Amino acid sequence: MTYSVAVSGASGYAGGEILRLLASHPDVEIRTVTAHSNAGQKLSEHQPHLRSLAHLTLQDTTPEILAGHDIVFLALPHGQSGQYTDALGDVPLVIDAGADHRLTSPSAWDSFYGGAFHEPWAYGVPELLVGGAKQREHLRGATRIAAPGCNASTVSLSLVPGVAAGVIDPSDIVTVLAVGPSGAGKSLKPHLLGSEILGSANPYAVGGTHRHIPEIRQALAAASGPSTGSGTVDPDGIRISFTPVIVPMARGILATSTAPIAPGATDAQIRDAWQAAYGDETFVQLLPEGSVPRTADVLGANTALIGLAIDRAANRVVVVTAVDNLVKGTAGAAIQSMNLALGLTETTALSINGVAP
Amino acid sequence: MTYSVAVSGASGYAGGEILRLLASHPDVEIRTVTAHSNAGQKLSEHQPHLRSLAHLTLQDTTPEILAGHDIVFLALPHGQSGQYTDALGDVPLVIDAGADHRLTSPSAWDSFYGGAFHEPWAYGVPELLVGGAKQREHLRGATRIAAPGCNASTVSLSLVPGVAAGVIDPSDIVTVLAVGPSGAGKSLKPHLLGSEILGSANPYAVGGTHRHIPEIRQALAAASGPSTGSGTVDPDGIRISFTPVIVPMARGILATSTAPIAPGATDAQIRDAWQAAYGDETFVQLLPEGSVPRTADVLGANTALIGLAIDRAANRVVVVTAVDNLVKGTAGAAIQSMNLALGLTETTALSINGVAP
Amino acid sequence: MTYSVAVSGASGYAGGEILRLLASHPDVEIRTVTAHSNAGQKLSEHQPHLRSLAHLTLQDTTPEILAGHDIVFLALPHGQSGQYTDALGDVPLVIDAGADHRLTSPSAWDSFYGGAFHEPWAYGVPELLVGGAKQREHLRGATRIAAPGCNASTVSLSLVPGVAAGVIDPSDIVTVLAVGPSGAGKSLKPHLLGSEILGSANPYAVGGTHRHIPEIRQALAAASGPSTGSGTVDPDGIRISFTPVIVPMARGILATSTAPIAPGATDAQIRDAWQAAYGDETFVQLLPEGSVPRTADVLGANTALIGLAIDRAANRVVVVTAVDNLVKGTAGAAIQSMNLALGLTETTALSINGVAP
Amino acid sequence: MTYSVAVSGASGYAGGEILRLLASHPDVEIRTVTAHSNAGQKLSEHQPHLRSLAHLTLQDTTPEILAGHDIVFLALPHGQSGQYTDALGDVPLVIDAGADHRLTSPSAWDSFYGGAFHEPWAYGVPELLVGGAKQREHLRGATRIAAPGCNASTVSLSLVPGVAAGVIDPSDIVTVLAVGPSGAGKSLKPHLLGSEILGSANPYAVGGTHRHIPEIRQALAAASGPSTGSGTVDPDGIRISFTPVIVPMARGILATSTAPIAPGATDAQIRDAWQAAYGDETFVQLLPEGSVPRTADVLGANTALIGLAIDRAANRVVVVTAVDNLVKGTAGAAIQSMNLALGLTETTALSINGVAP
Repeated sequence: MTYSVAVSGASGYAGGEILRLLASHPDVEIRTVTAHSNAGQKLSEHQPHLRSLAHLTLQDTTPEILAGHDIVFLALPHGQSGQYTDALGDVPLVIDAGADHRLTSPSAWDSFYGGAFHEPWAYGVPELLVGGAKQREHLRGATRIAAPGCNASTVSLSLVPGVAAGVIDPSDIVTVLAVGPSGAGKSLKPHLLGSEILGSANPYAVGGTHRHIPEIRQALAAASGPSTGSGTVDPDGIRISFTPVIVPMARGILATSTAPIAPGATDAQIRDAWQAAYGDETFVQLLPEGSVPRTADVLGANTALIGLAIDRAANRVVVVTAVDNLVKGTAGAAIQSMNLALGLTETTALSINGVAP
Repeated sequence: MTYSVAVSGASGYAGGEILRLLASHPDVEIRTVTAHSNAGQKLSEHQPHLRSLAHLTLQDTTPEILAGHDIVFLALPHGQSGQYTDALGDVPLVIDAGADHRLTSPSAWDSFYGGAFHEPWAYGVPELLVGGAKQREHLRGATRIAAPGCNASTVSLSLVPGVAAGVIDPSDIVTVLAVGPSGAGKSLKPHLLGSEILGSANPYAVGGTHRHIPEIRQALAAASGPSTGSGTVDPDGIRISFTPVIVPMARGILATSTAPIAPGATDAQIRDAWQAAYGDETFVQLLPEGSVPRTADVLGANTALIGLAIDRAANRVVVVTAVDNLVKGTAGAAIQSMNLALGLTETTALSINGVAP
Repeated sequence: MTYSVAVSGASGYAGGEILRLLASHPDVEIRTVTAHSNAGQKLSEHQPHLRSLAHLTLQDTTPEILAGHDIVFLALPHGQSGQYTDALGDVPLVIDAGADHRLTSPSAWDSFYGGAFHEPWAYGVPELLVGGAKQREHLRGATRIAAPGCNASTVSLSLVPGVAAGVIDPSDIVTVLAVGPSGAGKSLKPHLLGSEILGSANPYAVGGTHRHIPEIRQALAAASGPSTGSGTVDPDGIRISFTPVIVPMARGILATSTAPIAPGATDAQIRDAWQAAYGDETFVQLLPEGSVPRTADVLGANTALIGLAIDRAANRVVVVTAVDNLVKGTAGAAIQSMNLALGLTETTALSINGVAP
Repeated sequence: MTYSVAVSGASGYAGGEILRLLASHPDVEIRTVTAHSNAGQKLSEHQPHLRSLAHLTLQDTTPEILAGHDIVFLALPHGQSGQYTDALGDVPLVIDAGADHRLTSPSAWDSFYGGAFHEPWAYGVPELLVGGAKQREHLRGATRIAAPGCNASTVSLSLVPGVAAGVIDPSDIVTVLAVGPSGAGKSLKPHLLGSEILGSANPYAVGGTHRHIPEIRQALAAASGPSTGSGTVDPDGIRISFTPVIVPMARGILATSTAPIAPGATDAQIRDAWQAAYGDETFVQLLPEGSVPRTADVLGANTALIGLAIDRAANRVVVVTAVDNLVKGTAGAAIQSMNLALGLTETTALSINGVAP
């Protein structure tokens, strides 16, 4: 069958990328695209690269217009998705690219976002280890899915195998991310102007204020479980120093994440933890020893490439992960989760190869 | 008086930047420029931006040609400066932009560089705390000076105040640097091609292999002393996880350096450590609380801008420092040190303002 | 059936892009990849973004290794393809991404390339008007195909409709192109280093020396014919001022091409010329009046987007065309031509939508 | 003496660059900085690279606050400067970086800008040939100066020597410019966002609508005169096809300007025209035959570098000129003109050397 789809926030970067991927998906029909302030305009004015969808016109984002489709994607600023929950009650599958349904902890939501707390939905990172199994299992047949935060899923995928296997210590994680400005959306803010970003590395949210921190802590806490033999991890024992730096590339996340080596962990045990977690995965790949990834290698692809180094002098495992923030970090994760929810082949419409150079 | 100057390695990036700064220095005459493989060619073929020096022709790099000047700058690959030491014995002031005379430890040299060890020269970072005083005092009247490694001096300037004051724990430092490719020099290597670097974040030397690590450890060990009341720091107790990432900007270093907060250190004590160290400095500035620097703000300038955040949830101090790798990181440090050595005004020919946007 | 394929020059940019597109082609099997100096190494060392082909190992580029496949792609420096012509006589389909088989004029070859002249093959730009028909017709069932020069095909597609319709005067064409450095290949030359290209616009081959000039003149001369009613164009009457400028983007060509308005041509006639030529095309699209394309809109896509403006004050038609030099300019043109030669659906394995932002 | 200075529009790019240059000028004191919407904020919040001016606070832009200085710089959007003319009647020197006082033709103003026409002021491009002399002579002792449009002055400097000498035909000029986005100012517009500009070449104002066109025509018409022997040029006989393309560099203009070779002009005559015009200039330099400039070579400098090629096959002179739009294109031109107006050394506070790589 062909599923009818509506995409809200279709004039933005996340919405645009969802549309780009859906445009090559054989099982969906993009019936409706919406955008609040740009309603009535041609999609092509805002997404001129989506030539195959140039015939579409943006409608207003309202529950009435979104309802009546088989699948609805919400690509709205956080705090706005929640209001559609009830109104879209009859829609078989709703996927939210915003933050409203990611966190399980009301207090974490309150500390980092504020405003009304919404119930958590199935978290859209299929390859994450959760209690010894894969998150994929929670996505099969799901009807409500929360796509991940791009930085959060990148760091979580980087470290969860080591935490689950007990070979790294999650109490003193340090992660620094080189990120492209598209992760901040199409917001008209002075610090996102091209003149400010070209030729410069610009940090922001320094010192523990970034909203993706609780999302990472939640994923790491959920990593382990009975089957790993390492017991559950105390969320309060997970500490993360998190610093994002905007660099002059439109897309991409290069996350350098380090954690202390757990006492007694051997090099083989450490490497095996990641190999075991991702050895069978298509979209999350551990590179050979000595190799590190570049963001160009995953541009446009749904692939996370992981380089792993063990620095005994510093007593730290260093995990360098490259992701396209708009694909594996957002829209690709959403489509991959959609495929799982619908029982389709998981890799449909998703590329494993990047566009480089 | 006017000092006669020779600059070797004049066709490279470090040599070119030394020339750019010297070109506006009122007390020097650039008499000789040398470059091994490009000897005989016009300087302007290799440094077309140095319009005021377009009349110069590159000579061969030999001791005979370099001798007979008041000041000689060596901007050569590591391992090549050492051979000029004896031959330039009569030159009043020699400044080496290479690594050969930076390290005091033969074993550290052997581990990270290899080849013949050379005696250490006065280290060219005037603002560094050394034993409770400033490195500046060791540069006044110096005759042999080792300009710093760009990444090393950036990280050292970032952390030395906290180590000297005993408010951070140097045993578990993590630093990740976004760096421009000019730091790697004008080497014809595939990974330095524009097509590889544009639009991508590319890590290298991951896992503790970068040659600037021992230089940082040396600076941090020397930081403290009797006058600080914190006693000396055991070099073996200094551990650094160090990861550089090449990002698409020609110049610049944005170093994010974190270290655990020392037990009992208050926020005021922490901030005071940096304020006390740099409050009177022209070229190293602590930004107001809540501000972080961008590399664009120091482009072309001899300025290091430092943003400081205290992340109690992660139990880490986060120091974000922006530097122009070719100026404050290399050539500016060399000229500033030259000024000190000659008894000139320290800031001569050095800009505090960056070229932005 | 599944066609077996060999790709030479597989460690370079053109070869890599051919592989990226073939990797998603349902009708081919990539059996052999070759590269002269890198033979014996894993493909993934040179093309780390091609994750689905990471199992392949580069072999030497020899006629023996290339022979025995259904399709051979030659992605070699000009002057090197010619020698394989005879040796690959039994290969059903050979596609050359180099220049050796593009020009029909031995004297043009001699003036701009030199060395042995090779017979012209079917020119791989399906949408070009040739004598009132489309070049596509010459590619159906072809066994030897010359993929175009990226700049040449971009400019030819820009202007051919106007020349064929007689609404512009080809005797005084001026074209200036903003191009990414990947068009120059993975050559280790100082002017292609990232440090030289970042933050700078760098012209080259100024003053009429670029090798793509005769290729454009050839296409424009062939544009018209009996069916257009405009008669044939005298090749000697075609004059082109051609200036490429390397700008800091890995891929892309933005060609601004202007030509005098032919006496008496109305705005409607002018616009109709392009509309008639491309109105039914998938991969070459004329944008609505007032719209201009950006290279980001075609990144990774086989699409040429054309913006057309009529400047009566300057008496010139201005055609701005955006192309991904590695796709529509090279590898995509090759695959599209391959599809035509084999009788497959012309658009197979080729994207119309760009990857943006 | 020390001149007191007020700079309006101090939070923008033009204002910021005026301040950067003035900060190293020995004869001025920056007393007042103003910015309408940001009044009351620290200058450092908007110009964090101007460390030596970090103590300044932005005041409101009003005639009262600007009056009472020796020199006032207006860096305001066009249409806003005019209202200050009367109010600043007692200020000895006013320099407008906006467009209000550039054009001498009310009808040209009306066609391209609209709104009230203001009297033309002395045009701030000292090296321009005007009636056989240099514009410099009109700036000595001037009290009201209009700094040029960045694109306009770049193209005018490129072509005026050839027009004045009668070796090129101004009736069919074609110019295409690669420009950095800072030329568009700090405007919050979607097409100026970093995500839109990174990795892309984006044309705008295609087809003859750019506001700098009449400014170029005016300069070319004024180029010749009795002393050149070529007679005056009819303004209506000057036709320019003008296309700017935003490319991913924060600053810089690379203008490729072509014009037909005048009948009978020899190569020597052509080259001599530019050599004679600029051979004695410091800031406008003709490169040796075969050399072309790059924008990186003039970054931060007040230098215009010109490469000249004669393409006999295309019958066109090609002039490629590199300029830093914020320096020679705007703020440097303003300071150079100020120096002339005040009788100071013309080169004070202006660099001839660029910051590269």
